[in-house]
Amino acid sequence: MERAIVLAASAVGAGLAMIAGIGPGIGQGYAAGKAAEAVGRQPEAKGDITSTMLFGCAVAESTGIYGLVVAMILLFANPLIGKL
Amino acid sequence: MERAIVLAASAVGAGLAMIAGIGPGIGQGYAAGKAAEAVGRQPEAKGDITSTMLFGCAVAESTGIYGLVVAMILLFANPLIGKL
Amino acid sequence: MERAIVLAASAVGAGLAMIAGIGPGIGQGYAAGKAAEAVGRQPEAKGDITSTMLFGCAVAESTGIYGLVVAMILLFANPLIGKL
Amino acid sequence: MERAIVLAASAVGAGLAMIAGIGPGIGQGYAAGKAAEAVGRQPEAKGDITSTMLFGCAVAESTGIYGLVVAMILLFANPLIGKL
Amino acid sequence: MERAIVLAASAVGAGLAMIAGIGPGIGQGYAAGKAAEAVGRQPEAKGDITSTMLFGCAVAESTGIYGLVVAMILLFANPLIGKL
Amino acid sequence: MERAIVLAASAVGAGLAMIAGIGPGIGQGYAAGKAAEAVGRQPEAKGDITSTMLFGCAVAESTGIYGLVVAMILLFANPLIGKL
Amino acid sequence: MERAIVLAASAVGAGLAMIAGIGPGIGQGYAAGKAAEAVGRQPEAKGDITSTMLFGCAVAESTGIYGLVVAMILLFANPLIGKL
Amino acid sequence: MERAIVLAASAVGAGLAMIAGIGPGIGQGYAAGKAAEAVGRQPEAKGDITSTMLFGCAVAESTGIYGLVVAMILLFANPLIGKL
Amino acid sequence: MERAIVLAASAVGAGLAMIAGIGPGIGQGYAAGKAAEAVGRQPEAKGDITSTMLFGCAVAESTGIYGLVVAMILLFANPLIGKL
Amino acid sequence: MERAIVLAASAVGAGLAMIAGIGPGIGQGYAAGKAAEAVGRQPEAKGDITSTMLFGCAVAESTGIYGLVVAMILLFANPLIGKL
Amino acid sequence: MERAIVLAASAVGAGLAMIAGIGPGIGQGYAAGKAAEAVGRQPEAKGDITSTMLFGCAVAESTGIYGLVVAMILLFANPLIGKL
Amino acid sequence: MERAIVLAASAVGAGLAMIAGIGPGIGQGYAAGKAAEAVGRQPEAKGDITSTMLFGCAVAESTGIYGLVVAMILLFANPLIGKL
Amino acid sequence: MERAIVLAASAVGAGLAMIAGIGPGIGQGYAAGKAAEAVGRQPEAKGDITSTMLFGCAVAESTGIYGLVVAMILLFANPLIGKL
Amino acid sequence: MERAIVLAASAVGAGLAMIAGIGPGIGQGYAAGKAAEAVGRQPEAKGDITSTMLFGCAVAESTGIYGLVVAMILLFANPLIGKL
Repeated sequence: MERAIVLAASAVGAGLAMIAGIGPGIGQGYAAGKAAEAVGRQPEAKGDITSTMLFGCAVAESTGIYGLVVAMILLFANPLIGKL
Repeated sequence: MERAIVLAASAVGAGLAMIAGIGPGIGQGYAAGKAAEAVGRQPEAKGDITSTMLFGCAVAESTGIYGLVVAMILLFANPLIGKL
Repeated sequence: MERAIVLAASAVGAGLAMIAGIGPGIGQGYAAGKAAEAVGRQPEAKGDITSTMLFGCAVAESTGIYGLVVAMILLFANPLIGKL
Repeated sequence: MERAIVLAASAVGAGLAMIAGIGPGIGQGYAAGKAAEAVGRQPEAKGDITSTMLFGCAVAESTGIYGLVVAMILLFANPLIGKL
Repeated sequence: MERAIVLAASAVGAGLAMIAGIGPGIGQGYAAGKAAEAVGRQPEAKGDITSTMLFGCAVAESTGIYGLVVAMILLFANPLIGKL
Repeated sequence: MERAIVLAASAVGAGLAMIAGIGPGIGQGYAAGKAAEAVGRQPEAKGDITSTMLFGCAVAESTGIYGLVVAMILLFANPLIGKL
Repeated sequence: MERAIVLAASAVGAGLAMIAGIGPGIGQGYAAGKAAEAVGRQPEAKGDITSTMLFGCAVAESTGIYGLVVAMILLFANPLIGKL
Repeated sequence: MERAIVLAASAVGAGLAMIAGIGPGIGQGYAAGKAAEAVGRQPEAKGDITSTMLFGCAVAESTGIYGLVVAMILLFANPLIGKL
Repeated sequence: MERAIVLAASAVGAGLAMIAGIGPGIGQGYAAGKAAEAVGRQPEAKGDITSTMLFGCAVAESTGIYGLVVAMILLFANPLIGKL
Repeated sequence: MERAIVLAASAVGAGLAMIAGIGPGIGQGYAAGKAAEAVGRQPEAKGDITSTMLFGCAVAESTGIYGLVVAMILLFANPLIGKL
Repeated sequence: MERAIVLAASAVGAGLAMIAGIGPGIGQGYAAGKAAEAVGRQPEAKGDITSTMLFGCAVAESTGIYGLVVAMILLFANPLIGKL
Repeated sequence: MERAIVLAASAVGAGLAMIAGIGPGIGQGYAAGKAAEAVGRQPEAKGDITSTMLFGCAVAESTGIYGLVVAMILLFANPLIGKL
Repeated sequence: MERAIVLAASAVGAGLAMIAGIGPGIGQGYAAGKAAEAVGRQPEAKGDITSTMLFGCAVAESTGIYGLVVAMILLFANPLIGKL
Repeated sequence: MERAIVLAASAVGAGLAMIAGIGPGIGQGYAAGKAAEAVGRQPEAKGDITSTMLFGCAVAESTGIYGLVVAMILLFANPLIGKL
């Protein structure tokens, strides 16, 4: 029963960690919209705008990836089980 | 009973992980709206605007996909059950 | 009783997964409104505006579909039950 | 008692799934308002504006329909009961 | 007691399903306000504006009706009770 | 005791269903404000503006009425009790 | 004890139903502010503006009144008690 | 004990009913701010602006008063106790 | 024990009732800010602006006072205890 | 044990009552910002602007003080304990 | 055990009371930003702007201090314990 | 066991108290952004703008520090334990 | 069983800590969008804009990293287990 | 078991404390975006803008760090355990 409680909590914890994905989803969508607007006004600067946007999105992605990493560890490399 | 608790928690965790989809849904919709507006003003730049928007949306999609991946693992390749 | 707990959790999880539909609903509605506004200003660019909007909405739809897929799996092809 | 727990969870899950309707409700209303505004400015483009708006709303409707589908399955074709 | 649990959950589920009405309420009110504003500026386009607004509202209404349908089924044609 | 549980859940469900009234309340108030503003600018178009606003409000009212209907059924014509 | 549970749930349900008052409160206040602003700009149109605003507020009030009605029924004419 | 449960639920229900006061508080404050702004621009129309604002606030107040009425009934004229 | 349950619920209910103070706090602060802005633009209309603002704030205050009244009754003149 | 339950509920109720402080905090900060902006534009009207702002803030403060009063009564002059 | 329940509730209540700090934090930051903006436009009015901003912030601070006071009383001068 | 309950509640209370940090974080970031914008427009007023911003931020910081103080007291100088 | 409770709480705590990622995700996305917009207007200042944006994002990233650090410690170097 | 309850509460408390990171994340991202915008308009003032932004962000960071400090103390230097 002990293992079951830890594993059940890990499953719920993994689900909670993924909720962090709301943030990057909204933020990167805002960035994409602003970039598309800017490209529409200066199509000749498309390369610069897109690379700047992708730069920023790469940073914003990080917290989403952190959540994925924590969820993956909880699922596949669950170090808590080894401590029971 | 142990397996049941872990599996029930996995089902709830999979549902929680999908909630992350609110973020990309709002963000990408914003991007689509801004792109449609920009295309309306410079129809000749449609290709550039659409590709920029899709670039950004692809990045924004990622956190939604992370949630799907975690949910799928919880459902089909549930590694927690093997640890009971 | 074990099966009942897993199945009940699956039903609640399926309901939770559908809540992700709030995001695409708001986002795509925003896109539709912006597109309608843009068409009103340049009716001659209607084709370009609509296709751009639909492109973006197709991407935004994805997270809603992910939620549907997870809910359907929980209901029809519930892999958790086979693990009891 | 087992059946009762699964059926009760299905009823609550169906209610949760309908909450997704908040999203399309707000989004489509925004689209309708923007379209009405645009028609007011270019009455001659009414056909184009309305069809664009309805196009977008049809896509936005989808997540609300997904929620209805999941609720209906939970109520009428509940596959979980067959697995008890 | 079994029937009571399913019926009680149906009553709560019906209440939850009605909460979806918040979305169409806000959205349609926004549409009505925008339409009234547009009519004020072009009273001669009142017919076009009103019909466009009502078109959009009819679509936005749908998710509210879905919620009502699910609640009504839970109350009057509750298929879950037949499965006990 | 069985009847008591169903009836208690009906009372709570009726209360939940009324919360949907938040949406029409905000939306219709927005419409009223926009209409008053428009009347202030074109007092001669008062009839058109008011009727457009009331048209839209009538539609927005519907989800609030749905909630009332469900609550009334739960209270006065509770069909769930007959199924015990 | 049975009666006590139903009556306690009725008291909580009445409280929940009143929360719907948040919506009309915000909406009507918005309408009042817009009307006051409009009167300030066209004092000669005060009658038209005020009557339009009150028209809209009367509609917006309805969902608040629905909540009051449901609460009053739960308190004074509680039909659920007669079904025990 | 039965009376205690009903009375305790009444106390909590009265507290919940007062939360509705958030809505009129925000709305009337918005109206007061808009009216003060309008008076600042047309001090000679102060009477008209103030009376319009108070008219609207009186309507917005109503849902707050409904909440107070329900709370008072729950506290002083609690009809639920007579039904035990 | 009965008295303790009622009294404990009264204490929590009094705390809940005070939360309504969030609304007037935000609303009156908005009014104060708008009035200060208006005074800055027309210092000669300070009296009119301040009295209009205070008029509106007095109305907005009411729901906060209702909450205080209910809390005070729950604490000092608790009528529920007399019904035990 | 009875006293303990009432006193514990009083401590939680006092904490809940202080949450009302969020409202005045946001509102008064908005007022302070608007006043500072107005002073920057008309430094010669500083006295009028500041006194108007403080007038409004004094009113907005009231609901925060109500919360403090209720919390203080719950802590120091707890009238509920005397009724046990 | 009685003392423990009261003291545990006091600790949780102190934590709840500090949440009120969200309000002043947002409000004062808004004020600081508006003041910095105003100083940038009229550096010569820096003294007046800063003192007005600090005046308003001092008032806005009050509800945060109320929360601190209640938390401190719950921790150090807990009057509830003396009533056990 | 008594000590454990108080200490566990203290740990949760300390975590709750830190949530107040959301407010200053948003507010001070707004101030920093406005100040950076103002400096960009009048680089020569950088000293005045920065000092005004830091003044305001110092005040906004206070509620965050209050939360830290309460958490620290709960952890290190927990006065509740001495009262057991 | 003791270890299981601590480990289960650690898994849930790690999931809660990742929710902090919502903040940086929204904030950095805003920054990316503003930077892309600015690059579109002054492509020649791309280097300066990007480095400023990345500077700010690096700071904003910190709270997301704090959450990851706390989650990692809870999972891999859980110091709480050693204290049992 | 006593130690386990305190340690489990510490793990949850540490997770709650990290949620405070939402605030600085949004705020600093806003600041970064405004600074990037300002640099794009006056590239020659980049040094002043960046240093002002970093100054403000350093202050905004503080509440995030407070949360980290409290979480770290709960994990590594947990003073509560010594009091059992």
